Amino acid sequence: MFPLHPRLAADTAFVADRPLSRILLMNDARYRWLILVPRRADITELHELGASDRATLTEEIATTSRTLKQLTGAPKINIGALGNLVTQLHVHIVARGPGDPAWPGPVWGHSPAVAYDAATRDAFIAQFVNAR
Amino acid sequence: MFPLHPRLAADTAFVADRPLSRILLMNDARYRWLILVPRRADITELHELGASDRATLTEEIATTSRTLKQLTGAPKINIGALGNLVTQLHVHIVARGPGDPAWPGPVWGHSPAVAYDAATRDAFIAQFVNAR
Repeated sequence: MFPLHPRLAADTAFVADRPLSRILLMNDARYRWLILVPRRADITELHELGASDRATLTEEIATTSRTLKQLTGAPKINIGALGNLVTQLHVHIVARGPGDPAWPGPVWGHSPAVAYDAATRDAFIAQFVNAR
Repeated sequence: MFPLHPRLAADTAFVADRPLSRILLMNDARYRWLILVPRRADITELHELGASDRATLTEEIATTSRTLKQLTGAPKINIGALGNLVTQLHVHIVARGPGDPAWPGPVWGHSPAVAYDAATRDAFIAQFVNAR
C-alpha cells in the first residue's frame, strides 16, 4: 500500500478509494471537510504528477466537490493544496458558508479541530459514499 | 471580453492570457502570487466548468506552478480556489517558504497587502512571461 503521512492518518477517517485518490474525512465536526490523497509516493506538488494522473485527480476533485455541495447545500466549496506542514500531496475540499467558524477566511490554521462523535462521523461517511 | 470581477481587477496586474485563463499578479510584493481566472462567465465552482475546460485549467495551473517554483526557488507552491468573498472562479498559485509573512499558515486573510513598486512588479512579470 502507499504510505499515508502519519499526520494525515491521525487527523482523518477513511471514506473511500477512487481510482487515483484515497478520500479522507477531516476529524473536525464543525465542517464537512474531505481530503483527497493521490496514491503515489513522493509527490509534493501538483505539477509533479504525470499529466494523466493530474487529469484523473482533477475529475476526482470535481466529483467530490459536486457531491459535497449537493449533500450539504453549502454556498461555496473551498479547494486547497497547501502542504506547508505535511508535504505529501493532498487536496482539501471543504463545504463553506456563513456561520462556519472561519467564514469567510480560510479554514487552514484557523482554530483547533473539534472531534466528531463516531455516530455523526460514520453517518456522514455513509451519506457521502452512497451519494455517488 | 469576459467580465473580470472588479475586486480582482483592483488587486492585481495583468500578466498573460493562456488558452483558457487570464493570469494575474496579486499586488502584494511580499509574495510571488499569481491568480488564474478562466475566461468563462458565471462560473463559481471548479465542478461547474465543462470537463474539457477543467482539463485545460488543470494544465495551466500545473505549468504556472512549475514556472513559479523554478523562478523563485520556493520550497512549496500553494494552490487554492476559495471564492468566499469573490465568487468568480479564480485559482491562487503562491510561492511559499519559511520567512514569508504567513508561513506556514495560508496567505488568504493573513495581513494587508504591501503594494509593489512598478519596476519590481514589471520585472517579475517579464521574468515570468519569458520563462515559458
